[in-house]
Amino acid sequence: MTVVALDAMGGDQAPQAMVQGALRAARDSSFEVALVGRVGELRPLIAVMPPNVHLVEAPDTVGMGDAPSASVRHKRRSSIMVGLQLVKEGEAASFLSFGNTGAVMAASVLQLGRIPGVTRPAIGALFGNARGSTSLMLDVGANVDSQPGHLVQFATMGKAYFERVLHHRNPSIALLNIGEEATKGDRFAKAAHALLQRDEPNFIGNVESNGIINGDADIVVTDGFVGNAVLKASEAVLALFRERLRETIRSKPHYLVGGWLLKGAFEELRSDTDERGIGAAPLFGVDGTVLIGHGRADSEAVLNGLRLARRVGESSFVSTIRNALAASLVAEQVRESSAAADPTPEAPTPGAAG
Amino acid sequence: MTVVALDAMGGDQAPQAMVQGALRAARDSSFEVALVGRVGELRPLIAVMPPNVHLVEAPDTVGMGDAPSASVRHKRRSSIMVGLQLVKEGEAASFLSFGNTGAVMAASVLQLGRIPGVTRPAIGALFGNARGSTSLMLDVGANVDSQPGHLVQFATMGKAYFERVLHHRNPSIALLNIGEEATKGDRFAKAAHALLQRDEPNFIGNVESNGIINGDADIVVTDGFVGNAVLKASEAVLALFRERLRETIRSKPHYLVGGWLLKGAFEELRSDTDERGIGAAPLFGVDGTVLIGHGRADSEAVLNGLRLARRVGESSFVSTIRNALAASLVAEQVRESSAAADPTPEAPTPGAAG
Repeated sequence: MTVVALDAMGGDQAPQAMVQGALRAARDSSFEVALVGRVGELRPLIAVMPPNVHLVEAPDTVGMGDAPSASVRHKRRSSIMVGLQLVKEGEAASFLSFGNTGAVMAASVLQLGRIPGVTRPAIGALFGNARGSTSLMLDVGANVDSQPGHLVQFATMGKAYFERVLHHRNPSIALLNIGEEATKGDRFAKAAHALLQRDEPNFIGNVESNGIINGDADIVVTDGFVGNAVLKASEAVLALFRERLRETIRSKPHYLVGGWLLKGAFEELRSDTDERGIGAAPLFGVDGTVLIGHGRADSEAVLNGLRLARRVGESSFVSTIRNALAASLVAEQVRESSAAADPTPEAPTPGAAG
Repeated sequence: MTVVALDAMGGDQAPQAMVQGALRAARDSSFEVALVGRVGELRPLIAVMPPNVHLVEAPDTVGMGDAPSASVRHKRRSSIMVGLQLVKEGEAASFLSFGNTGAVMAASVLQLGRIPGVTRPAIGALFGNARGSTSLMLDVGANVDSQPGHLVQFATMGKAYFERVLHHRNPSIALLNIGEEATKGDRFAKAAHALLQRDEPNFIGNVESNGIINGDADIVVTDGFVGNAVLKASEAVLALFRERLRETIRSKPHYLVGGWLLKGAFEELRSDTDERGIGAAPLFGVDGTVLIGHGRADSEAVLNGLRLARRVGESSFVSTIRNALAASLVAEQVRESSAAADPTPEAPTPGAAG
């Protein structure tokens, strides 16, 4: 039976939403959840303890404002550190947290290490696109000042997720840019484009940020600064529109009736477009399965996150990344040794226009 | 009477939407519009020519896909070039186009020049924020590989817009970043933060991209790559949500009734949140008043764009930027000469954490 370790103390609605989500997941008897946190606070929230839910003591908690490096150094027995320990020791297949993203990333690298060859682990964001399929953008905030080569690794790691978890073979991969032509963008984007073109067979070129939403590519790679800005703005725009819609509906009696009739429609859209529907996204490049969900998570989001964490934990996601990076290291060495044997310089690429 | 020159040939719905928008604006007899384009195509679209609408011949048209530099070189008599000529010669107070943004920018720099001291002209995006006021983000795509100092100029130029066009004194200015603390972000953001802190009295610190939507600052400055990505993703997310809402409403009879009752509410929201409501945004740093609107513009957006173009053209927006930059050049020289007189190095700033 697959065990998922859940950080019971991370998230705006912790620990209530985490406990409720775990209890909902445990209705499926093939599912086992280890709730990691202050047992004294968690126990009273559970009226009848199901046999497939376990409480694991972790006295420290990491706040949303805690500095990642300090939390790792000074809170060795936090729910994050203890939960990751369960994965490290093989007691859990995956770890899921809705807490401090930076702290989870730092603790994961410390506890589980990086997959050999990974220079920069990345955070992904999964979302439903306009085509009705799932898109993945990475990185969305683990890295800034990326090197172009990091984006090639992000592509490799994203592909492993599509192939092993979503069972989607040969996902298309694009580079986030401000124009579709290869000559567009800043120095970083141009260099990344050239490397992806050379090393990634599934690379289809640039997409603009609207192309991510439209589903023009399955996987979109970018530096974490840009990915983070795109993700947070998108969430905020949608939240603002919903809030305005709510207010407008309240402003006139016949709008209220219309809103009441459309209640089900708004609910359908919510689960469709919200982070609640997807639940969480994995860390890429850490040597073990770790997922991070949005701090706003309610029990519905926790339930969906747990299901996803189980699915990823049961897949060969991590070992696929390990093998792919080992193969690309070999390819790199072959390329370097043949370059050494044949020192003819490559033809220069044409200069960037306009 | 203030004359606004309108590019009649640029935009997805050109020339119809441009002609209709101009005719609507011309119902106000204090408004004069110069419609610039192929007169032979424009004339048949106007049943009765109002005395305050003029047709100005421009035989060339610039397509959305034309390279900006080539369009400027090879299409000297395009609607863009001829319209800008009217501003240059003082025949029009401002020029408005819904066409190829890069081409309008390139032609503006060529025809009108940069305001002395401006290294990089910028494009702004205006939008209604969650507080119900207007926010401005710049740059949203004119520049990539910006230097930190460019962002200080963007701040100065944005402030001139708020003070002279919106009559909003002392707007707050923030830097787009991936965290609020001064130590957050990539190398570029950290350097820009330090410069803004030193040189811009209205600087309030960093905002994350959700803070732009929430209205945490009046003006948000960023490099054009990031600004462009944030802007286009935000537009696409909203468009997708609306499309899904439309589809869902069509899926059940009682949803259709609800949707019918809410028709007015959706319309209110549209004019509130859409680029249609604002119409256009100015170029910052060009020595003359030029505004660019969204290519999707319908006649409503054109009407609103013309009203804004008139308002900006009648304001002291451009001369305020000119004076502010002249003053900051003087301040720079004073700082340099006093630094030369007192060579004591400044105390190092504390190292960036986590």
